Amino acid sequence: MDFIPVLDKGFVRLVEVMGGDHSIVQAARVSYGPGTKTVREDRALIDYLMRHRHTSPFEMVEFKFHVKAPLFVVRQWFRHRTASVNEISGRYSVLKEEFYEPELWRQQAGKNKQGSEGAFPDEEADGLLRQVEEVAYAAYQALLQKGVAREMARMVLPLNLYTEFYWKQDLHNLFHFLTLRLAPEAQWEIRQYARAIAEIVKAHVPMAWESYEEHVLGGQSLSRTELMALRGLLTPEVYEKALRELGLPESRVREALEKLFGGPPRP
Amino acid sequence: MDFIPVLDKGFVRLVEVMGGDHSIVQAARVSYGPGTKTVREDRALIDYLMRHRHTSPFEMVEFKFHVKAPLFVVRQWFRHRTASVNEISGRYSVLKEEFYEPELWRQQAGKNKQGSEGAFPDEEADGLLRQVEEVAYAAYQALLQKGVAREMARMVLPLNLYTEFYWKQDLHNLFHFLTLRLAPEAQWEIRQYARAIAEIVKAHVPMAWESYEEHVLGGQSLSRTELMALRGLLTPEVYEKALRELGLPESRVREALEKLFGGPPRP
Amino acid sequence: MDFIPVLDKGFVRLVEVMGGDHSIVQAARVSYGPGTKTVREDRALIDYLMRHRHTSPFEMVEFKFHVKAPLFVVRQWFRHRTASVNEISGRYSVLKEEFYEPELWRQQAGKNKQGSEGAFPDEEADGLLRQVEEVAYAAYQALLQKGVAREMARMVLPLNLYTEFYWKQDLHNLFHFLTLRLAPEAQWEIRQYARAIAEIVKAHVPMAWESYEEHVLGGQSLSRTELMALRGLLTPEVYEKALRELGLPESRVREALEKLFGGPPRP
Amino acid sequence: MDFIPVLDKGFVRLVEVMGGDHSIVQAARVSYGPGTKTVREDRALIDYLMRHRHTSPFEMVEFKFHVKAPLFVVRQWFRHRTASVNEISGRYSVLKEEFYEPELWRQQAGKNKQGSEGAFPDEEADGLLRQVEEVAYAAYQALLQKGVAREMARMVLPLNLYTEFYWKQDLHNLFHFLTLRLAPEAQWEIRQYARAIAEIVKAHVPMAWESYEEHVLGGQSLSRTELMALRGLLTPEVYEKALRELGLPESRVREALEKLFGGPPRP
Repeated sequence: MDFIPVLDKGFVRLVEVMGGDHSIVQAARVSYGPGTKTVREDRALIDYLMRHRHTSPFEMVEFKFHVKAPLFVVRQWFRHRTASVNEISGRYSVLKEEFYEPELWRQQAGKNKQGSEGAFPDEEADGLLRQVEEVAYAAYQALLQKGVAREMARMVLPLNLYTEFYWKQDLHNLFHFLTLRLAPEAQWEIRQYARAIAEIVKAHVPMAWESYEEHVLGGQSLSRTELMALRGLLTPEVYEKALRELGLPESRVREALEKLFGGPPRP
Repeated sequence: MDFIPVLDKGFVRLVEVMGGDHSIVQAARVSYGPGTKTVREDRALIDYLMRHRHTSPFEMVEFKFHVKAPLFVVRQWFRHRTASVNEISGRYSVLKEEFYEPELWRQQAGKNKQGSEGAFPDEEADGLLRQVEEVAYAAYQALLQKGVAREMARMVLPLNLYTEFYWKQDLHNLFHFLTLRLAPEAQWEIRQYARAIAEIVKAHVPMAWESYEEHVLGGQSLSRTELMALRGLLTPEVYEKALRELGLPESRVREALEKLFGGPPRP
Repeated sequence: MDFIPVLDKGFVRLVEVMGGDHSIVQAARVSYGPGTKTVREDRALIDYLMRHRHTSPFEMVEFKFHVKAPLFVVRQWFRHRTASVNEISGRYSVLKEEFYEPELWRQQAGKNKQGSEGAFPDEEADGLLRQVEEVAYAAYQALLQKGVAREMARMVLPLNLYTEFYWKQDLHNLFHFLTLRLAPEAQWEIRQYARAIAEIVKAHVPMAWESYEEHVLGGQSLSRTELMALRGLLTPEVYEKALRELGLPESRVREALEKLFGGPPRP
Repeated sequence: MDFIPVLDKGFVRLVEVMGGDHSIVQAARVSYGPGTKTVREDRALIDYLMRHRHTSPFEMVEFKFHVKAPLFVVRQWFRHRTASVNEISGRYSVLKEEFYEPELWRQQAGKNKQGSEGAFPDEEADGLLRQVEEVAYAAYQALLQKGVAREMARMVLPLNLYTEFYWKQDLHNLFHFLTLRLAPEAQWEIRQYARAIAEIVKAHVPMAWESYEEHVLGGQSLSRTELMALRGLLTPEVYEKALRELGLPESRVREALEKLFGGPPRP
């Protein structure tokens, strides 16, 4: 399951991994030393690290992917700077005639300026896209045949052209990438890549993934005012009871109560 | 107010700032273009960026500090890698006889393995500390007088020795530094430095600070299970009413409801 | 001179600078302390830092630019990760019909697979380019009119489309950017942007620029074997004489001799 | 050979590696595509990448070390920011009574303000060091026994105390670390660690190491003026002959001549 097709012609392929859940534990135990050697099991330690945002042990796991994606997706992807990357160079090689052609077209969202909503088939739109591809790729080839340098000729190619790259990133930064790119605000196309990566990551570091899902991906940041509103509507007792009923262990119940009802005041 | 004494002999001094609240707005408007030129005021735009974790515009403001702090504080400080730093070198110069001497001693916390609690004066402890300082600095001077290289002689000096450094960091990463170092889990001494920096930052980017305080510093990350517990205890109506009573604007009320009661499902 | 037109429709504009030559000196003096306070003048200190690759004081100066450039240039530019950036988003705004149209076309280089050579006008090539632009932009508008989301519609646009962004980077990393992008191997178009940035940087940190030109930009890295060949062809005496005749100060002559004829052996 | 003792009580131990020489080639081939598939062998490709400073493929190899070193060495080490690190925390655990005790003492260098020269045994100096260790560690224990928090008590400990940490870094950044820390200007103690790391790296990526040694470690950066002096003393013919006699292949001879006698002019 380390090769996952994405969109119409793209993919995510796992090339290599360094470490796993055990590497997170191993690095954390160096930091916390004999002091934690006792009862705490690996799963509990990883969960502790995740919910207290002790991020450095998660940097000790490294993933390397081979990805094929359209240029407009890659432009979003490479905004993440904490990674290593090698991409096909259009200066060295003639770029292949491979374009992303969506099955459905999404509508411009009304309220949300950056988003889209709904999705519909539209043959006319398909035709417009295909026409651009054909005119552009024909121009690309004509320029090359004239002897124009590849580095110049490529500028006629549209942003739905496929490219390929290697992507190497540690688990902490990969989680950050996923948080942003699995979010509903992310563009649908990059979300499909994020889902493929998520599937691979989950399979290789199941404990870290579980904690990530519980505390980050499935969690929410509440503002001071939102916490204040909740505080006015609930008592600690009723919240504590509800948390226990959901099976939270003692230490997590205590932490949850502290978040809502206090604990050491912030400066 | 750009020079703030910290601990017994340390300080934080602002050397230079590049930009301010207006630079955040300026950079954001490049990204979002004419699409946002309309009604949104600066304060609202900054708040939107902060609560949706659009962090790049905050990188457009840069602070440079001159800091004097004990070595054990500096060791924690320099774990932050997204900054530029120049520190006094004990290879080039003879280090001065200046040591941090706390007014009060804090007790080892019971449950929390990394923490401390309570604080008490203790002349015996003061004496132990001073004895180490004297023996160590005398040895340092004796080694130098023997002609031992400065780079070697310095290894007898204890971790409460004061050092000085320049620290340059952008506002996004500075907020991250503050979030970690103002937290109650941070060691008391570095928290005093964080508070001094916070005071300076607040004075120079008041709008960004206000949003940071509301959404990050004064906020909390709730896990999936905690959200589930809350969801079982409240109705959207009662929560909405409480949020409105606290004066939240319409768009923020909508967002708050979405966080707790849904909105587009995560993949 | 802080706005420089580049290519047919692009530009580089300086938005803000933090610090200057004096900031490099100021930060270096913290590191080296009273030990260097004596005779060394600013220019000599900056030159010393540059040629010994003491890079951290150069990080203490920060530049912020506003740039307008074609997408294929921006794709190369953003491979530099040690900077902060905000770019126009095609998800928020309708992108303008502005394309890079070269005056001359460059020929594919023979030996050098990534390069180009020669340059010629070619009306047919101009026509091919313009045809792609027209078909692509018409398709973009038609898709938008159909209600297709901006984030999708933009994928028909070609890589010679102009975009704009803010770019903030410290001087050390900016020098690194310039070294790579002023090099003859860099694509001609990005070299024009690098030259514009170089002009601005030179005007704001003239001393640092002078040292950068002498030791990095105008210098060369010689391999062990190349050094060995030179060593076999020259005597220290003859080289020393030549260096002196070019006006090098004593300390630099000594360093130059050490590079070629030895000095402390590497491990 | 993946565990190497360093100094009197320290060590460098390889924990994990991701990839090897083949990973550099693999990533480079993605970038340069079919265009380079032909004749170039792996060794030649790696050497090409190294001497043209195409650094990104070297980022595709990752090393993780476990290191035990004195605090003053670690303070220098952690100035490198492009790595991941987990260190023993003196807040969680009681630090062990282990101190670096040098066999020989080095003399303060005369001209070079940061350096040392000569080395001599000195029992008096040994005694001074040992006295500081004893007084400091006794004070540490006494403070702990009084109930003082570990995070405070540790501040009496001197900089020759040993600590341990995990260090994860990619090969490109590791080479940069080695270039700085194998240099004769680096402090002798950290140089011993760099040598141990160099030995391990060399064994795992022999081809990359060979190129690194030829082009970086054993090479030198010559300034514009130094190149000018050489140009005045040699003819291309005589230099070419000497290069050939040392067995340089054709393409490298051409590049070497270009560095000294021209080639495309810099802007």
